[in-house]
Amino acid sequence: MKVYNFSAGPAMLPEEVMLKAQEEFCDYHGTRCGIMELSHRGPEFMEVLATAKQNICDLMKLGDDYAVCFIQGGASMQFCMIPMNFMPAGGVADYADSGTWSANAIKEARRFGTVNIVGSSKETNYDRIPLVRHWKPSENAAYLHITSNNTIAGTQYHTFPPVKEGVPMIADMSSDFMSRVIDINEFGMVYGGAQKNLGPSGVALVIIRKDLAARANSDLPTMLRYSTYIEKDSMFNTPPTFAIYMLKLITDWMKAKGGLAVIEEINNTKSEALYELLDRSDFYRSPVSPGSRSKMNVVFRLPSEELEATFVKEATQNGMTGLKGHRSVGGIRASIYNAMPIAGVEALIDFMIQFEKANG
Amino acid sequence: MKVYNFSAGPAMLPEEVMLKAQEEFCDYHGTRCGIMELSHRGPEFMEVLATAKQNICDLMKLGDDYAVCFIQGGASMQFCMIPMNFMPAGGVADYADSGTWSANAIKEARRFGTVNIVGSSKETNYDRIPLVRHWKPSENAAYLHITSNNTIAGTQYHTFPPVKEGVPMIADMSSDFMSRVIDINEFGMVYGGAQKNLGPSGVALVIIRKDLAARANSDLPTMLRYSTYIEKDSMFNTPPTFAIYMLKLITDWMKAKGGLAVIEEINNTKSEALYELLDRSDFYRSPVSPGSRSKMNVVFRLPSEELEATFVKEATQNGMTGLKGHRSVGGIRASIYNAMPIAGVEALIDFMIQFEKANG
Repeated sequence: MKVYNFSAGPAMLPEEVMLKAQEEFCDYHGTRCGIMELSHRGPEFMEVLATAKQNICDLMKLGDDYAVCFIQGGASMQFCMIPMNFMPAGGVADYADSGTWSANAIKEARRFGTVNIVGSSKETNYDRIPLVRHWKPSENAAYLHITSNNTIAGTQYHTFPPVKEGVPMIADMSSDFMSRVIDINEFGMVYGGAQKNLGPSGVALVIIRKDLAARANSDLPTMLRYSTYIEKDSMFNTPPTFAIYMLKLITDWMKAKGGLAVIEEINNTKSEALYELLDRSDFYRSPVSPGSRSKMNVVFRLPSEELEATFVKEATQNGMTGLKGHRSVGGIRASIYNAMPIAGVEALIDFMIQFEKANG
Repeated sequence: MKVYNFSAGPAMLPEEVMLKAQEEFCDYHGTRCGIMELSHRGPEFMEVLATAKQNICDLMKLGDDYAVCFIQGGASMQFCMIPMNFMPAGGVADYADSGTWSANAIKEARRFGTVNIVGSSKETNYDRIPLVRHWKPSENAAYLHITSNNTIAGTQYHTFPPVKEGVPMIADMSSDFMSRVIDINEFGMVYGGAQKNLGPSGVALVIIRKDLAARANSDLPTMLRYSTYIEKDSMFNTPPTFAIYMLKLITDWMKAKGGLAVIEEINNTKSEALYELLDRSDFYRSPVSPGSRSKMNVVFRLPSEELEATFVKEATQNGMTGLKGHRSVGGIRASIYNAMPIAGVEALIDFMIQFEKANG
C-alpha cells in the first residue's frame, strides 16, 4: 500500500530524493564512504554546501546583497538570535502575533527589549492573520517580525505588510519556506527550520541582508552572531552535513520541477481542491477565516471529536498518516508541503468523501 | 578496494550501522516512511529517543542524578552555553588550556566573566596535557573546564585532575566521548559533538548533573538553558531526529560489542600498535610528549613536508583516506575512533612500513 504522510513536520520528503539518498548512503560518488562520514572540509561536502547555497539563490532569485546561512537549533534558536542581534539596548521591536510560534518568538524577544504587538488574532483563537490595516507599528521599531505561515492554526499571509522605510521585516517562514514565489527585497531576513519543505530536522535556513547582519549588536557569542555564519560560510564549526546534503538534493529536485513558480501552482492546486471540498460540505468545517487560509496546513473539524478520532484511525488504515491536528487545538490537519504529490491530496479527498457518506 | 577513513570528524561510522540505516532509510519498521520523515512526537521517534538515552545511561553507568541531553550547535555552542549558565556575575571560572579547542572555549567564556588559566601547554605548541601538579586553581571558581582529548594536537588526559569540593569539573569530550570507561561522578558535566565516536554531525551529547543545571543563571533564552533540555527531554522544539537515530544505532552497536570496557581495550590495542611503530622508527616521529598521547588521534611527522604530501597521496591510493594533519599544524593524523576496525590500523601499519622502506 502506498503511504501518504500528512505530518506537519518532520514531514514527507520527495520520493526520488529519498531513493537517491538511500542509494548513495554508504558510497557517496565512489568514495566508499557515506557523505556523513566525510570531512566537512573535504571536496565532496564543500561541493554539496556550495550547490545547496547556489540552488537557494537561484530558486529565490537572491541578489548579492543577501547571504544564505545554515544554522542549528531550529526556528526556536532564531527567536533569541534575532533580538540578540538586532534589538538595541532599551529598544523596541514590532511583532505580529498570529499563532503559537509568533507567541514563542515574542516571549524570547521580551528578554532583550520592548516588544510592541502590532496586531494579534489571539482573541479569535488565531483563526486569521491579524488585519494589517489595523496594525499599530511603533515609531522606532528595530525590526518587524511576522510568521508567514502558522502551522498549528492553519493560516498564512497571502500578501506581506508594508513597512516603514528603514524597518527591516523579518519573517519566520518555517512552514511555507520556498513553497511559493516571494520578493526577497521586501525582507531584511527570512528563516525557517528545514523539516517541512526543505529537508530533515536539524538545520535552519537563514537568508539575511548582509548590511543588516553587519549592523548587529557587537560582542555576542560567536555562535549566536549572524556575521559568523556569513564570514565563515556556515563553516565556523562543523555544520550538520547530512541535513545540508538532504537540503541540496531537495533543492536540486525543486529546480528540476521548474522552480518556485511551478511549485506554487502545484501547491495552489492541492490546497484549492481541499478547501473546495470543505466549502461544499456540511460535514467538514474549516475554522479558518477564508482570507487567511494556509496552503500548507489545511485544518478542519468534523461534527464531533469522536468522529475526528475515527477519521484519523480509518485514514491511517487507508495509508494516510499524520492527520491528527496539533495537540493544543485538536481537529484534523492535512499538511501538504512541496513533497506531497497531487495524488496524495486526491487520495485524501476520495477518502473524505467516502467517510462523509458513511458517517454524515 | 576496502576504504579506511581516518578523518578526524565527521568520521567513519560502523559498517553494520551504515548498512542498517541504509536498509531502513525509506521504510522505517514497516511505516513506508523514513525515520526522518516521521513526526518527532510519533511513537517511532519517541522510542528512538528513549532508547538512545537508555543506551547512554547503560554504557556510561549514569545514576539518576545525571541527565542526558541532545543539543544542536556542536561543542562550539557549548562554549557559550557553559558560561552563560554557570558563570556568576563578576565571577571566575578555571580553564585548562590544552589546545585549539580549549582556547576557543576560553575565548567565549571571557565574554561572561573572568577566566583563570589553571595551566597551559601553549608554549610547547600543545605537545602535552599541562602538568596537573603545576596547576593554579582560583579560590572561588564557578567550575573547572578541561578538554579531555585534543583532536588537533593529538593529546589526551589519561587521568583527570582532582578538584576542590564543590567545584564542578566540565569536560569537552568531543573527540574521545564513550571511547573508554570514565567515572561520571568526577564530573559536573561532559559534552561533545557526535561526529567522532557517536554519529553524524548536527547533535551534541550533553550529560549534566541535575543539581548543577538547576543552579544555572536564570532568565537565559529558552534554547540556551540546560534546564529546558532536561525538563522537555530534549524536545522543547524539533530535535535533529535523524542524527539522534544514528546515535541510537551506534550506541546499540556499542552495547552489542560488550560496552565501554571492551571498546576501550580495542582502542588501546589500536593506538598501542601505532605508537609502537612510531617509537621504533627513525623515519616517523611523534611530536607528542609520551605521557599525553591520544588514543583517538595519532599525529606524527615524516622527515619532510614533501614526504608527508607523498605519504598522504599514496595512502589514499591504497584506500586509506583522511590522513592529512589539521591545516593549522600540518603533518599526518590518523584518527582511530571506535568505528575504526583493528584491520584498518593494521592496513595503515603495513603501508607505513612499506613507505618507510621505499623512502627511508
